[in-house]
Order: sequence, then C-alpha cells, then structure tokens
Amino acid sequence: MKALVYHGPGKIAWEEKPRPALEEAADAIVRVTTTTICGTDLHILKGDLPEVADGRILGHEAVGVVEETGAGVAAFKKGDKVIVSCITSCATCDYCRRAMYGHCRRGGWILGCTIDGTQAEYVRVPFADTSLHAAPAGADEEALVMLSDILPTGFECGVLKGTVKPGDAVVIVGAGPIGLSALLTAQLYSPALLIVVERDPNRLAAAKALGATHVIDGTDGKAAEKVRAMTGGLGADVAIEAVGLAASFELCQELLAPGGHLANIGVHGKSATLHLETLWSKTITVTTRLVDASTTPMLLKAVLAGRLEPKKLVSHRFALADALKAYDVFGNAAKEKALKVVLSTR
Amino acid sequence: MKALVYHGPGKIAWEEKPRPALEEAADAIVRVTTTTICGTDLHILKGDLPEVADGRILGHEAVGVVEETGAGVAAFKKGDKVIVSCITSCATCDYCRRAMYGHCRRGGWILGCTIDGTQAEYVRVPFADTSLHAAPAGADEEALVMLSDILPTGFECGVLKGTVKPGDAVVIVGAGPIGLSALLTAQLYSPALLIVVERDPNRLAAAKALGATHVIDGTDGKAAEKVRAMTGGLGADVAIEAVGLAASFELCQELLAPGGHLANIGVHGKSATLHLETLWSKTITVTTRLVDASTTPMLLKAVLAGRLEPKKLVSHRFALADALKAYDVFGNAAKEKALKVVLSTR
Amino acid sequence: MKALVYHGPGKIAWEEKPRPALEEAADAIVRVTTTTICGTDLHILKGDLPEVADGRILGHEAVGVVEETGAGVAAFKKGDKVIVSCITSCATCDYCRRAMYGHCRRGGWILGCTIDGTQAEYVRVPFADTSLHAAPAGADEEALVMLSDILPTGFECGVLKGTVKPGDAVVIVGAGPIGLSALLTAQLYSPALLIVVERDPNRLAAAKALGATHVIDGTDGKAAEKVRAMTGGLGADVAIEAVGLAASFELCQELLAPGGHLANIGVHGKSATLHLETLWSKTITVTTRLVDASTTPMLLKAVLAGRLEPKKLVSHRFALADALKAYDVFGNAAKEKALKVVLSTR
Amino acid sequence: MKALVYHGPGKIAWEEKPRPALEEAADAIVRVTTTTICGTDLHILKGDLPEVADGRILGHEAVGVVEETGAGVAAFKKGDKVIVSCITSCATCDYCRRAMYGHCRRGGWILGCTIDGTQAEYVRVPFADTSLHAAPAGADEEALVMLSDILPTGFECGVLKGTVKPGDAVVIVGAGPIGLSALLTAQLYSPALLIVVERDPNRLAAAKALGATHVIDGTDGKAAEKVRAMTGGLGADVAIEAVGLAASFELCQELLAPGGHLANIGVHGKSATLHLETLWSKTITVTTRLVDASTTPMLLKAVLAGRLEPKKLVSHRFALADALKAYDVFGNAAKEKALKVVLSTR
Repeated sequence: MKALVYHGPGKIAWEEKPRPALEEAADAIVRVTTTTICGTDLHILKGDLPEVADGRILGHEAVGVVEETGAGVAAFKKGDKVIVSCITSCATCDYCRRAMYGHCRRGGWILGCTIDGTQAEYVRVPFADTSLHAAPAGADEEALVMLSDILPTGFECGVLKGTVKPGDAVVIVGAGPIGLSALLTAQLYSPALLIVVERDPNRLAAAKALGATHVIDGTDGKAAEKVRAMTGGLGADVAIEAVGLAASFELCQELLAPGGHLANIGVHGKSATLHLETLWSKTITVTTRLVDASTTPMLLKAVLAGRLEPKKLVSHRFALADALKAYDVFGNAAKEKALKVVLSTR
Repeated sequence: MKALVYHGPGKIAWEEKPRPALEEAADAIVRVTTTTICGTDLHILKGDLPEVADGRILGHEAVGVVEETGAGVAAFKKGDKVIVSCITSCATCDYCRRAMYGHCRRGGWILGCTIDGTQAEYVRVPFADTSLHAAPAGADEEALVMLSDILPTGFECGVLKGTVKPGDAVVIVGAGPIGLSALLTAQLYSPALLIVVERDPNRLAAAKALGATHVIDGTDGKAAEKVRAMTGGLGADVAIEAVGLAASFELCQELLAPGGHLANIGVHGKSATLHLETLWSKTITVTTRLVDASTTPMLLKAVLAGRLEPKKLVSHRFALADALKAYDVFGNAAKEKALKVVLSTR
Repeated sequence: MKALVYHGPGKIAWEEKPRPALEEAADAIVRVTTTTICGTDLHILKGDLPEVADGRILGHEAVGVVEETGAGVAAFKKGDKVIVSCITSCATCDYCRRAMYGHCRRGGWILGCTIDGTQAEYVRVPFADTSLHAAPAGADEEALVMLSDILPTGFECGVLKGTVKPGDAVVIVGAGPIGLSALLTAQLYSPALLIVVERDPNRLAAAKALGATHVIDGTDGKAAEKVRAMTGGLGADVAIEAVGLAASFELCQELLAPGGHLANIGVHGKSATLHLETLWSKTITVTTRLVDASTTPMLLKAVLAGRLEPKKLVSHRFALADALKAYDVFGNAAKEKALKVVLSTR
Repeated sequence: MKALVYHGPGKIAWEEKPRPALEEAADAIVRVTTTTICGTDLHILKGDLPEVADGRILGHEAVGVVEETGAGVAAFKKGDKVIVSCITSCATCDYCRRAMYGHCRRGGWILGCTIDGTQAEYVRVPFADTSLHAAPAGADEEALVMLSDILPTGFECGVLKGTVKPGDAVVIVGAGPIGLSALLTAQLYSPALLIVVERDPNRLAAAKALGATHVIDGTDGKAAEKVRAMTGGLGADVAIEAVGLAASFELCQELLAPGGHLANIGVHGKSATLHLETLWSKTITVTTRLVDASTTPMLLKAVLAGRLEPKKLVSHRFALADALKAYDVFGNAAKEKALKVVLSTR
C-alpha cells in the first residue's frame, strides 16, 4: 500500500509500505477513507519528537472502513464505517479505569508516533473496541474526522477543563485549528463573551466567522487591557491557552478575573512564569490535560444533532495520494490561509 | 395607587390601595413598569394557597424603577431600572448562605403571597440589595420580566437539577410557560434531542417554534414508547416534569434511561408512586427544587448576549390597568393560546 | 470440585461439580480461599430471582488465588492473590465507558446469578483484567472479601450518592450488613451525626460499636421526630435507605432536611409513595444506584491505610465445606446475631 | 481599653486606645475573650503590608461576647458568645453572592489590616450577621478561635481546592500552623497517605503527632524522590503548598502524579516557575484561593462532633495583656517550638 512515511527531521515521502496485518486479538485493520494533518505532525517533521523513528507512517486522525478484526474485537466487524481515535485505550489499566485514556499504559497517543499511523491506505488500530467509534451511515466524513483529535482536544483540554458556563466571559488565545476547535465547542455552553486573541489576520477573520463574539489583534500587547475593558474591569472567567508559548500563557494569567480558570491546551517546550505574587490571592485554577478523546461520543451526538459544525474548520481538500502537497500547504498555514487540510480517497 | 387585589377564592379586583412606604432600612420602593401573571397566581385565585389573605396585592414578577431606598440599601438608588426577583433573600440566614434563597428564613417567595406584590403601580421590596437586579439601560423589559421567576424556575429546577449536557436526550413533559422556559434554557447546554410531550396542540406548536427538536402529543399514552424509539431503546438522559401531576411524574420515570435524571418543576398537590421495584436498579436521580433565582445574573448575561430570547414566551400584552382582562386571558390559556401575558405602564 | 449449588426455591446442596475451565481469552480461573454469603443469596433461595437456574453455583464475593488465565488477560497471572468483584465488567461497552459497570452489557452482576459463582473451590471469572483486583500480600482476607460487594455497595449507593460531607447529619435506616457497610464507609467523610434507625436490638448494638453516634429503635414509629430533635428541627442532610421496604423509604423522606439527599441502597420488590405534595418545595434529591464496584480500588487503599476496618462486619466463620451450616446461621441472622458470615479454606 | 497597636515596621505596643463604637447599622461590638496571632501579623510587623497604617490595632481572629449591636443586626444580641471570622462579608456584593467572601467588595480581610482588629479588649465587627458565628455554650474557646482563620484557610485553600478524597496520597509541604491546619482538616476525608515535608525537626514531630502518616525532612532535597517511592512511583494525588516560596511550589510540581492537584495556600511575594514543558501533558490542576471562611459552620460542626481537634495546634498560652510577650514567642517560633499562641482574658 501507499503511505506517508517519516525519514528523520525534514524528510517525508509518499511511498510503498506493507499493508498492516492483525497482530493482537484486539486489533482491527481499517481502510482509511479520510484523514488529516495535525500540528503535531509538523512538530515531528521538525524533529521535536525523537521518539518517532525513521520509517514511521505518520497520522493519528482518520475515518475509514473496517477491513478485518481480531478474535477479541466485539463491537466492530468488516464493513463498519468508523472514526479512528487519536487515543488508543486498553480500557483496563488504572488510568483507563479513571477515563484518563491519554495516559493509558498500553496506548495513549501511539498512532503515527510509536506505531504506524493513519496517513496511509490502511492502518492497524490496537484495542479496537475502545479506540474506534461507530460512524453513522451518511454522516459527512469531513465532519467526522475532526472527532479523531482536534475537537475532543479543544473541548476536553480547553472547554471542559476551563468549565465554560452559560453567561461566561471566555477568552481563547490562539486561533490555529486547536484554538478554533475550542471556539466551536465552547459554544455548546453558551458563553456571553467569546473573545479570540490572535495575530494572524486570516485567523482572526476565521475566528469571527466561527462564532467569536469579539476578536482582538494581539500584536500591540494590549490584549489584557482590552479584555478588561470588555468585562467591566473584571477580566475573563475562562482563559484558554491554545498556542504553546510562555508569552501567551502569561497573557492568560494577566487577563483572568478573580475566580477564573486558565485552561492550557498548548504543547509547551519551555517553562513559563506563574505570577504567584499576584495570583496567590486571586482564587484561580490553572489546568493542563492530555486529550483522552473520552468525549468523542458526546461530540458525535452534538455533530449529528447539528449543534456543532466542525466541517467549517476545513480549508483545503486533497486526494490521499497528494499527501505531500497537503503537508506543503499545511506547513505554510499563514501564507496558504490553511486551517484543517483534509485528505481523502473518494 | 391602583393594584390588583385578591379577595378570597375566585375574587380579584383592580382597586385603589395606599402607595407602599419604606418599612425597614433594607427596603426599596419600586415603581412597576412591567409585570406579568404566573400560574401560581391562578392557584391563589382558586383558593389553593390559604396563606394568601384577603386584601393581598398579587404578583411576584416585575421590572420597574427604584423610587426610594432605605438607609441600609447600598446597591441601588432612586432612578435605577431594576428587575424584581420573585425570591426575596435576606442574604444572611443559613439557607441564604448556602444559596438556597427560596428557603430564606425571612424571605423566599413572599411577594404577592404574604406581603403585597408587583401587580400594582408600586411595590415595596424587602432586602433590596439582594432581591433586585440592575437592569441594563435599553434592554427589552418584556425579556427582563421573564427573569423575575419563570426563566430561573425552568432553568434551576429543570435544567440545572436535571444536569442537561451537550449531546443529551432531554424530554420535557408539559409545555406551559414553565415547561417552555425549561425548553429555552435547556438550549444553553446544547442537548442533541430536546423532546416536548404535551396534549394541547397550540402548546405543541409553540414548543416546536421555541426549539424542541421533536414534539410528542401525549394524548395516546404512548409517549414513553416513542421516546424510547427516538433514543435507540435507551430512554432519556434527562426528564423534566413541568405539569405537577402524578401521571406526568410517573411518565417521566417510565421514559428515563439508566443513569438518567428526573427533575421535577411541577407544583404537586398529591403524592405520586415511585416505581422502586424497577428503579432501584436503574441508577437514577430524582430532584425537586424551590426556585432560588440565584441564576438570574447568569441568565441576564445570556439574554444580553443574545443566547437566550425569553421574549418569545410573550403571547399577549396589556396595559397594567387592564389587569383583570389579562387574568381572563391567562386563565383561559388553552382557548386564548396564551403563554406569558405581559402588563405594562408604557 | 465441591460447590454450593442451587436447586430451586428452598433447595441448596454442597455437592460435586466439574472444575471450571477457561472459556474466553479474557477469563481467569480463581481458586477460592475466602468467600461469604450475601443477602441476595437468601433472596435467590426464596425464589425471588427466577433468572437463577437450577444447578447454579451461588456466590459473588471472594478472595482467592489465580490458577489459570486466558490469552487475553494482561494484568494477572497464576499465583496472584486477588479479590473477585461482584461486578463483572467488559470495560468496553457504553455503560462501562461511563464507569456504570453494574449495567455492563456483557457483565454486571452475573456471578452466582446467570453464571456459576464463588461459593465453590474454583470459579471462572470473565473479563478478569477488569473484574479482579490485586490483593496485597499479607492483607487480611476477611477484610478483603468485604471489598467484593458489601463495602462498595454501601459506599457507592449510600455514601457517595448521598454525598456525605464533613459535618453532615446522616441517618441510615436499617442496620443489616449493607446498612452497617454504609455506616463504616460514611465515616470516611467525617459526618457530625451518624444516626442508625433499626428495630433489632443486636443490630442496634452493632451499629453503636461500628461508629454510629446515635442509634434509634425504630419500633415506636417516632424515628423522624427523634431525628428532627437531634438536628435542631431541621432533619437529616443525608438519609440512606438500607432495608428495601416502602415503609423505610417513606421514613427517609420524612426525616430529610430541606436540601437533603435520600440515597436508596435497598432492593425493592414494590413501589413506594413519593410525597411530592410536600417534597416538591423541599429541594431534595433521591437516588438509586446499582453497585458498580468502581470504588473497590479506593476502598482497598483506605483498608490498607487502616482508615476502614471492614473485618468488624464479620460475626461468624466457617470452613468452606460447611457452607450449608453457614447458610443456616446467616438465614437466621436475628436469632444468631449474624452480620457477615465468612467461609474459608484455610 | 488596651490594645496591641502597630506603629510601623518593627514597632508594636500594648497601649490605651478608645473603645470602639458602633458606626453602621450592621456593626457589632465584641468583647474579646480569646485571640491569637497569625503569621500574617508577623508579615505586617516586617513592613510587608504597606496598607496597614501606623496606629492600627492588629489581629483578625477572636472569640468573644457581643456587647452591642447596630439596628440592622438580626442574628446576634448582647451577651451572645461568638467566633469573629477573619473575613468580613457584606453578603450582598457579587463576590459574596458567589460565596467568594474573601473578595467581598466592602469586606474581605479588613480586621487588623484596614480597620482595627481583635488583639484588643473590644473590636468593632462590620456586617456582623455574616461575619460572626454563634459559639455554642461550653465549647472550648481555644478550639473555637482556630475557626476564625487558620482552620478554614488550611481547609478551603488546601484540602477543598486540592479535592482530598478517601484513599488519596496527599503531601503537605510546610508544617507551620497553616500546614498543620491543612493536615488536621485533610483527615476529614480519610486519605491513605498524609505526608508532611518540612525542615524544622520540631514541626516534623508536631506533624507526626497531629496525624501525618509519614514525615519527610526536606533538607536533603530528595523529598520528591521519597514521595515517589512511597506511592509506587506515581507521585501524589494532592500536593498542598503551605510555605509561600517558589522552591516549595516547585517541589509540589515535581512530586505530583498525573491527574494530581496542586493547592497553593502560601502567600507568595515572588513569581515561581511553572514547568509546562513537562506539566502540559500531565493533566494537572493548580489552584490558589483567598480564604473565604465560608466553611466555618461546617468545621464548627466537625469540632463539636469531635471529628476535628484544633486545640492541638495550641503550643503557648498568654494573658491578653501579655500580647507583646506572645509576639516574642511566636516571632521566634523555631526556637520556641511555637505553633499557635493563644491570648485570653480568662
């Protein structure tokens, strides 16, 4: 089969690889019909994740059709349309029993990282019963593939950890795909203010189109001041960090109201300063979370009911065989005005 | 001044009464500009609430303008536009400190019950600091008056106690004003299914117009069966009782999924049967709650942000001086297709 | 091997049965070293559970040693000391993913009900990875066997659902083993008052010995009145029903304070009256729950730390081979002053 | 009357001051019978709190007897024995309505800070209805005075924010009075491990005596390593920072398990480093909180029930008139082996 293969920093190729076979009783083989590229894939390409070996097929998001199942798979059979979760969950370890699937001792994020991934014609999915989700017939695959990773990540790490409530003032710092995913899913809880801070004008426009009540161009360093002005001087009830930099994390601290929640989604390479000299008395909560994709069933219901339209995140479409072109576009997101880039075999 | 006065079962009059004066330091006198009639007022009229004395001015919902404040009032002053809460809260008793304002030892629901109410040109509001809410200039009074009672009642007793979540299957039994208020506020949490069961065809149509995803005519006794069919055999995650009869409470039990919540809003005159012989093993939660109106600030933010449009509940409008006509219409709600009936001085 | 076998209402025998063998990859065979008898076993014996077939080995609680594991078992191996949970959990169905293991679509309570149970020399445990718990070397087996069912049942259905908090006034109605288990585990949350209502003088004495701050002899019908007197007229914050009768369920309603929780543990054969005519305005919560045994790991930590001493529930000890004698004693609990009756092979 | 008066950094005197009089309708005058010194008083003495003016009477903890009440006080009358809360709550502002009394717009921590305090023969308490608590006749005043500040601070900021649960592994860094108060109140939730890290040997011994399951001498820099060893390599479920230094805050980060909570109690003068480069994927929660003293009623019930023995925190006793001696001892806590130092008029 053909697949997108990583060959060390800066090197990927669309090349022939052996079609995956069942290895464990709990495995399923899925024929990929739609996949996408994640910001994390770009990090791999930069060499930021040394655990990804030369020869690894990338990708951890997909919709596809079950081709074959191991003897231990009870919930799926050949021919089933499925969503492949970015998180593989053994279901039985201590973390899985606490619904912390991202920390699963035999799974977690392994697809396209420590085992071959979804940017290929076929993928082997371990622990299929708890790592796949049935996709309803007729549902839009471009919407469904957003349920693999980006929607649950924005929702779980940003919206749920931030405890967004009706009437809240919510600020999202960063309007890349993950920030926009928090923006979409935050609307499930009807905040009063849904403010996006971002520097890229295209992304500011995207944020506005996707439901932000206000957008703030963050280039002038006055975002915290502006948020305070919009909130009667109080600051935000919820600040969602969706960039992964110390500066944006510190901005979130600065714009938070007493009693507020700072929910980190960003992947950070460096530490940040926590301003305890002011925050100690501000009654705040700071959270981090690895996505568990435990809310994919809930989000799927919301999508099917029309309460959530993740398809709006898709900016570009390619044939799977044009994966290299898709990486080119996604890798130049600012110039190409790219949000989510979908690859499909249809 | 003129006021709507109760004179025993079946008897009300629009008559002259002394204008109220400050009695305690925490009091405010409010000139009523908009008020409305509650189902509870009809119960009083039927004689169901013997604690309401002959001579009592009725009404516990209003928007108005502060005329005068006692020495202890800190948050309001003459000229302020305010929402009068149906719940008077002393703020200091043990129940108030637990935010159970409906159970306040010196307040609770007293307006138009044990003290004179809001269906009058002026009303005295005790504990004004915590029983009034500032109404933003320019906001629609018809929307605001719904925040006195009906919206917080549907939201607190139905939606919050029922723990409505994104993706949930929610059933509301009863589409009178209170059921419709639960219907409107449930949408703040983006349920997937929002089903209304009701027998009156006008109210079924109103439910559809106000956001029900499905409506069920309850006359054939097959509502539970239909809900099960709509939920893949599981039943509802949340059932909200908004009628106040044993039969509708039992229907809620019948249509609940394992793990489900039954939130009672209805005022019940009689006991109901709880089917513990099946429910003991169904992992369910049944709640009752007296409205506390503790969420009025949150709901006000949602209204001002356009997330909630309670004005849609208004079916009829009258001058305050036509209060008797308004009672006539509201008392014949089915025939008159009445939902909320607004009285105003403008 | 020898086992305690059910042969229809009123008939049990200690007889020879084939030693169980692995049937599925997820199975384990456990050699039973300690087991016990549950009130539910007596219900089976009375014929109350028609789903229990003639020939069924009874019992759903045990500590033992793993003899053999199927190919799919990852967490246990031959020789491991284990606690057998009363709840078999497939870990992958929709209910298990919500931690509602008692509702598991392929498991739940099946041991000693629809498949052979633990009152035998050996037992086959399906879904062993998630239906067994590792038992620390050296821990007291009599304490551990209480973690199979009775402790998590009292804790989950009574204490957790009742939301017992430090300082609360808690009333437990019924001081059989399950009520006493709620009594023991309620102390993990340091309530101020921990009142037990019961009619059997031996059980009242047991309740006092196990940590009740007050006991009330329920025979005079004045329990609600006495609870009110002990709580400054307010009533209980939490009422736990541990009998399974309409009368005790109604007593719980009667003694509840505004804002209180009524947590049902009892198995009910008949419906009860819910006094909505008073409760609609009392802001109460009524819960039922099937035990999930999801808290067994938490309770095990508490036992090992000495915070919980479930061994105190054991009133009688027998050799496993004397199972019939043990049933005799447990079946005449009042006369024999029996609480939990332990059978062991040591 | 006599009072302990601050006269700028390093200067306090026991001197004559006018006896306080009622200023507002909501005030009460309390005759102090027992008071104590807080670590914050020492900070004031060092000049760390410039908002404390020359001439201010210090102290924000007391038990006493009501001498006089303003016209607006409903819950207390002359002769009532009361606990004076460190937090003055107006009960009506937006923060108070959210139970964030520490942030009260007209109160918060003002006693002994911006208004005269409790280290005096008499004190004026504003908003008496919601800033005093009735003290039961006969209760031990030394226990009660711990409910003014130190117990609710340790409990709310440490135990509640840290979400201590039965079976948890809890680490408290710092065994000064506030850390010991967290230690005492954490036991209300029955954690399995309750580890205290501290450098002062006397305080380590006190921690052991007050319920720590393990103590770690933090001088060798191996505390995180030792905690990991005690928790099977996982780390702590809850880490409570009770020092107020960046180093101890960073230690808390280091010893936390995935899914853990870091609850800050310490007053910090400087920022700390938050190690997002590792914590972003560790699913943790960091909290700060200003004490609200909203749990004083709950803690009082626990004290009266004997579930909590705060009197054990008292190491030294003085007559009120010997306040300067008491400051001497408390200011040399290490040398004097001082924990809480009680001053009383009895």
